[in-house]
Formats: sequence, structure tokens, C-alpha cells
Amino acid sequence: MEFSLTTLGTASALPNVNRYPSAHVFDIHGRLFLVDCGEGCQVQLRRYGFSFAKIDNIFISHLHGDHIFGIFGLLSTMSLLGRTADLYIYAPRDFSSILNFFLAHFGDGVRYNIIHKVLNCATQELIFSSRTVEVYAFPLNHRISTFGFLFKEKEPKNNIHKWKMESACLTLKEIASLKDGNNVVRENGEVLEVTEYTYKPYNARSAAYCSDTAPFERLSSWIEGVDLLYHEATFAEDMSKMAKDTYHSTAQQAGFIAKTASVGKMIIGHYSSRYKDLNLLLNEAKNIFPETYLAKEGMKFEVPINKN
Amino acid sequence: MEFSLTTLGTASALPNVNRYPSAHVFDIHGRLFLVDCGEGCQVQLRRYGFSFAKIDNIFISHLHGDHIFGIFGLLSTMSLLGRTADLYIYAPRDFSSILNFFLAHFGDGVRYNIIHKVLNCATQELIFSSRTVEVYAFPLNHRISTFGFLFKEKEPKNNIHKWKMESACLTLKEIASLKDGNNVVRENGEVLEVTEYTYKPYNARSAAYCSDTAPFERLSSWIEGVDLLYHEATFAEDMSKMAKDTYHSTAQQAGFIAKTASVGKMIIGHYSSRYKDLNLLLNEAKNIFPETYLAKEGMKFEVPINKN
Repeated sequence: MEFSLTTLGTASALPNVNRYPSAHVFDIHGRLFLVDCGEGCQVQLRRYGFSFAKIDNIFISHLHGDHIFGIFGLLSTMSLLGRTADLYIYAPRDFSSILNFFLAHFGDGVRYNIIHKVLNCATQELIFSSRTVEVYAFPLNHRISTFGFLFKEKEPKNNIHKWKMESACLTLKEIASLKDGNNVVRENGEVLEVTEYTYKPYNARSAAYCSDTAPFERLSSWIEGVDLLYHEATFAEDMSKMAKDTYHSTAQQAGFIAKTASVGKMIIGHYSSRYKDLNLLLNEAKNIFPETYLAKEGMKFEVPINKN
Repeated sequence: MEFSLTTLGTASALPNVNRYPSAHVFDIHGRLFLVDCGEGCQVQLRRYGFSFAKIDNIFISHLHGDHIFGIFGLLSTMSLLGRTADLYIYAPRDFSSILNFFLAHFGDGVRYNIIHKVLNCATQELIFSSRTVEVYAFPLNHRISTFGFLFKEKEPKNNIHKWKMESACLTLKEIASLKDGNNVVRENGEVLEVTEYTYKPYNARSAAYCSDTAPFERLSSWIEGVDLLYHEATFAEDMSKMAKDTYHSTAQQAGFIAKTASVGKMIIGHYSSRYKDLNLLLNEAKNIFPETYLAKEGMKFEVPINKN
């Protein structure tokens, strides 16, 4: 039961041969959630073996080119591949005119519905829910309307202790009830307690995505305790003035957010093209939050199942 | 004095990890002419060492996504790199609304002029002229308004035979006149004949670009005798019905065009993603026109100086 983040692009505004613009894939139980869609995203998806057919939901943090210019090619290719399934795109309000532009000029062969779900929340808000996962959006602090995303695995159903199943001769109905978390009262008055008969198979996992943003106080409360945090670290401290002016974070600031929010692990990315050696960024973040890792094109960060 | 074509992308509608969408660079005496701008073009330009600053003219054959989706990223990056020089984009009429869309949504920091020169010719027409090169556009036969391009090096100035320069004690003024192709009449009545004193240093070179198009009769007259022809070969003969229906050429048809137009060398590209082994396409074209070569990402085809 996969729960992972793969980074397809670590560049900020200026991509180069080794660094693609922002695009990320959350694989949650085999369902793919694409977050941001910079130029070249469709080729990066292919390069790292992601099936376009498994993507039904795309999340766009904001409408700067380095997060969106790959959407035209991706939508076209999905069309050429014969897609008919609905595609949901969660994006700021202005995405409507981008989508309308695309459909008017390049939408001739598009045979599937593209549904724009407008992001417009002032605080954390549930925007997607399936059998296995919930996605929340929350506002970030960038030059234009920008949103972060929180992916929360749903609590798994209880498992029944094997030895109890046999010794108590549980019926299918009793098993279903216990798995759902309800005590069972038998006809003879015997009570089978959920806490005695079942256990949680694993803890529900969570991950958050924060790009692009300047630091702000409320952010840590929205991502409190996530197992995995992707946070932008466009600049090092040498460029803290530039970071402030452009509403970005330094690696150190990202470290403070990870620490304050008590996350499990932090991945940094969205590197300014001026940094050839990324260890500068890594070390600045690690000084504050040791469990920091550098994102790299194609690198997958898995959140393992935790049974404790 | 370079005269070359580098292919940045050989894919047709569906790109993959090894095949980028259409984009090509003509380097003529160090000046770069970009033809088509598929997704990922800016990164391909970087990968093969082309300076964005040397591009002042972009030629867009038509407004299908696989020839244009890279323009947004390229224009943005030129802006971020601080461009101030005018940029000319030769493209069909509807490109205006694409450009307006770009400027309205992503044009905030753009500090250079982007001038759209509308392509609208029914026959071959001069669209660009500099000291070294002329560019002509001509209509192709595709599903939407589409144009091919002819790059013609200007005739070089005459060179003076060295031994004549010394024996006749030519003045600078006389040399300039002879180089320009004018006879010189000296005060004593002596006539210095251009034909006797000078020679053409090399033959002016030419190259044409034809993508996307179904074959049609007039095409060969517009590209007659070019040294280098890039021609699409989306399909092999097994898909000739599909080629006809989608207004594309088969490799064999490209071969016939090259042969009829008596070109020097033909490069084929714009391959359908169904062809993993391109030798099928190559061989079909070579059967008709032996001097056919396969385009490949990053491959440069030079037209050498011919002094005969």
C-alpha cells in the first residue's frame, strides 16, 4: 500500500538540462495525484514510469509559468491517448481562463471532461475525499494566490486478532462489525469488545506540499505532524533579502517550519538556478531540522507503514 | 561561416523520453533562427549549447501543440534572463491570440518587445532579409494554416585574385568597386574587368523546412535545388491512408519531393511514435532519394562551403 512522493522537477523559475520545473507525484495506494505541472512534466512522467491513465486529479499550487506550462502538453497527450475519464484540476480561480484558452485553441480532439475545481480557501479546507485518502488545501504566502496541499491517508479498518477469530468462532457479520469499530453483542448477552478483538493494522500516513511561499505563522499548524513535508527552499541565507522580496523561503526558514510543525521528514526543492552545489541549502536546513533531504529528479520518497 | 541545421526534436504529436516535439535551429553565420518551438525547446536549446541571446527570430510553421507549446517557457526564460532586444515571431495569424494570452497571464516581467509578423502568403514570399540571409515562407498542405521556410544565404562579395591585387597596384577604392561587382575605369582609360580580377569565394547555400504537410505539386518548385531539405516523414507506407487523412507525408512521399526538387541532401523527422526502429522510414525514403538521413535530437547537419 504505497504512500510516496516522487519529484519530477526541482528547478525554480529557470530550468536547465538537469533540473526540470516543478511537478510532483503522490502515489497513494496506486492512485496518482499530480501536484504542479511545469514544462516537460509529461515526459518526466513517462521517464519515471507513471501511467497517465492513473491520474484523475491534478493540483496546481499557483499560476506561475514554472508550475503550469506543462499542462497544455499533458492535456493534449491524454487526449491523443484516447482518454475518456473525467479529469479534475484543483487550481486557483484564474485557471479557468487558462483552461478556456487551451480548449479554444487546442481542444479539438479532447473527448474527456476537464473539471476545474476552484481553490479559494482562507484556511485549511477539505477539497478531495476517496476511500483511501483526503486532500486538504490551505493558503500560502506568495506573490499571487497560492495553495499548499495536505494528503491524509484515511484511518485503516481494524484487523481482527487471528487467535480470537478462531477461539470465538466469529461469524462474517461479527467480523465486519468489529472491523468497523463496533462492539458485538451476541444473543446470549456476551459482549465482544472491539479493543479486545481488534488492532489498528497501521497508522494513517500524511504528507504535505508547500511551494511557493514565504514563511508565515499559521503554516505549521496546518501541516502539524505530517510524516513527509515537501517544502520549497529556493534560496540560502545569503539571499534572504531576495527570498523576502519574492515571497520565497530560505532553506533555513524551511527547516524552522519543519521543526515547529514536528514533521517526520522534510524534502526540499525548487532550487534557484544560482546554486550548483545543493549542499549549501541542505546543510542550512539540516542545522535546524536534521531530517532534511534534497529532492532530485526522479527520486521517490516513501512513507513506510508504521504498525506501532 | 556556419550554415547548419540542428534538430532539437523529432517527435510528432506524442513525445517520449528520447523524442522531443518539433524544434529546430538554423545557425547561419552565427545567427540563430529557431523554427518551431515544441514543449521542452528551452531545455533542448541549453542542452546543445545554443545561446538564447543569439535568437532574434522565431518561425512557427503552424499552431498545433507539438510545434508551439514550448513558446511560453522560452519567452518567460528570455525575460528572466534580462532580455531587452526585440524578438520577432513569424507565425500564422492566430498566434496573436496565443501571444496576447501569454502576455496577459504571464507577461508581468517581460521587458522586451515581441513582434508577431503574420504569415499569410499563398505562394513563396520573402519574410526576412539581413546582410547574410533571406528567409522565404510558403504555404504547406496541412489540416490548418501551415507554412514552410526557405533559408537562402546571400551571394557573397567577390574576392580579388591576390596576384592581380599586387601586379595592378589596386587602390582601396578600386578593390571595393571590384568586390561589389563593378568594373573599374582608371583615369588613363584602363579598364579593370570584374571577371578578370575577381572570383566568387563560394556558392551561396540554402536550406528548406517542410513540416507538417501532405505532398502537393507546387512544393518542389519552391524548394528547387536547396542544399539541405528538412522534410517531415511522419509515417511509413503501411500508414499511407492515415498519412492522407491527417495531411502528413510518408517517408516515400518525402523521398519523391526531394528527388523532384533535386535537393542536395534530405533530413527526415517528425516520426510517429509507433515507429521504434526508424530504419523502416529511412529505407523507404532512401529507395527514392538515396541522400536521405534521419534527424536525431541534437544532431547537426552542416552545409559545407562549396567553392566550385
